[in-house]
Amino acid sequence: MAATTRRWRVHRLGRDGQTAQRADVLAGEEPLEIRIGGVSYSVTMRTPGNDFDLVAGFLVSEGVVAAAGQIRQMDYRSSVGPTGERDYNVVEVHLAPDVAVPDTTLPRHVYTSSSCGVCGTASIEAVRKTSRYDVTSDPGGLSLEHLLALPDRLRQGQAVFGRTGGVHAAAVFVPAADGGEPALACLREDVGRHNAVDKVIGWAVRESLLPLRGSVLQVSGRASFELVQKAAMAGIPVLSAVSAPSALAVELGEELGLTVVGFNRGEQLNAYTRQDRIRSG
Amino acid sequence: MAATTRRWRVHRLGRDGQTAQRADVLAGEEPLEIRIGGVSYSVTMRTPGNDFDLVAGFLVSEGVVAAAGQIRQMDYRSSVGPTGERDYNVVEVHLAPDVAVPDTTLPRHVYTSSSCGVCGTASIEAVRKTSRYDVTSDPGGLSLEHLLALPDRLRQGQAVFGRTGGVHAAAVFVPAADGGEPALACLREDVGRHNAVDKVIGWAVRESLLPLRGSVLQVSGRASFELVQKAAMAGIPVLSAVSAPSALAVELGEELGLTVVGFNRGEQLNAYTRQDRIRSG
Repeated sequence: MAATTRRWRVHRLGRDGQTAQRADVLAGEEPLEIRIGGVSYSVTMRTPGNDFDLVAGFLVSEGVVAAAGQIRQMDYRSSVGPTGERDYNVVEVHLAPDVAVPDTTLPRHVYTSSSCGVCGTASIEAVRKTSRYDVTSDPGGLSLEHLLALPDRLRQGQAVFGRTGGVHAAAVFVPAADGGEPALACLREDVGRHNAVDKVIGWAVRESLLPLRGSVLQVSGRASFELVQKAAMAGIPVLSAVSAPSALAVELGEELGLTVVGFNRGEQLNAYTRQDRIRSG
Repeated sequence: MAATTRRWRVHRLGRDGQTAQRADVLAGEEPLEIRIGGVSYSVTMRTPGNDFDLVAGFLVSEGVVAAAGQIRQMDYRSSVGPTGERDYNVVEVHLAPDVAVPDTTLPRHVYTSSSCGVCGTASIEAVRKTSRYDVTSDPGGLSLEHLLALPDRLRQGQAVFGRTGGVHAAAVFVPAADGGEPALACLREDVGRHNAVDKVIGWAVRESLLPLRGSVLQVSGRASFELVQKAAMAGIPVLSAVSAPSALAVELGEELGLTVVGFNRGEQLNAYTRQDRIRSG
């Protein structure tokens, strides 16, 4: 079975001439193939664990499904390794009859309208067309203090990172009814930034929690275009990243009315769009 | 034209109650579509700049080409934006007549042999079959001191990072004839870790420098399976990362006889495989 971590003997070499051999724990990384109706849809390198969350979240991000009922079943039945045993690296998805099976003959991010080129404007337009939830009208609302605390809370929840130092994390925090500290609803880790987010969103769709109104998606890395897209597809109004956002991530956030926060380092942060959702009191 | 950076007005909010508006520089991120013989092959989100290097390096990484002469021409001719002007986000590749056109109907990393599953072992086997260069027999050889200096040299060379704080970098260092400090041959930046490496490898193939015997590929992030694969496809015997490697990255390095270094932080580093290439004197 695919493992979340693996032990390895490592040589540590120091400038001071010190060398030491010791056992190190490495983050697992294995390919995961998603098949829909028997046809290969996508292959991603991921850290094994929470695979069904990853698959469900990926399908939400791609606009294939938006609710738990649209996925009839997911299983590993077709997953057989080179030596004949099941290897848990192929997930077969059975969609509900009313869900359109995605076109697998096109590379991802190729826009089929012949009138549009491939550029940031077209990418933003494509996300806008696919989004089922309108985050613009979500008032959100979160105190600056609570927002600044999220990177630490994310880091404290990272079980695999603590052992390997080598994985990204994403977590969704949901508002407290009394305006107090938001609650950590789900945290997932992965060697891939996008996968960690897909696992969180997949958990949410499987729990029938979409759209995640008023919530914050906190990520350990930077805020790329695709992470803003994934937040939007799950109806999450605030994306907070520890590192920098890209230009296109900010432009998409502006277009969709999604709050994009970057360089959230615990003491201060940058708000690039819709800072009205952050209360400084 | 697609831009490498973009200015944006940002709100900086601090725990101390300080808020400030200021102009920030963001890293550009735009989709790039690669077409081969008029057919869409791949789309990647990348930082504009050095696009032909990116395309050439991606084709080397995927095993499509291994020498400059196998790419007859690359151009932006089919790239037209939504408003009619050229937008430089589609690169059309014209391969030499003797180069097999890759099968675009399969998702990447799907192995066509019906006898093999999708797992780490199959992934390693697929890379081994595709590799044209044997790095095992490359003695390499680099002093620990020179290796520990590479992250700083990488960081100093990052023009875009200095302005945005938001991009990854990769650089290839080649051995000095007299055993002195290795020379920085090429450094590239991108919002995507894989793209930065592809840009470096693409530069090398276009300069007819493959295989990059005795060289070191230094990267700003972690060492994933795909980065070890890319190093191997370019004949680079040493991959050095600032962060952790994944289990599969280390296993692939072991299998191919490629030195995998992680947590290279300037004072000490971890050698996971083939540490014989690192001289501690």
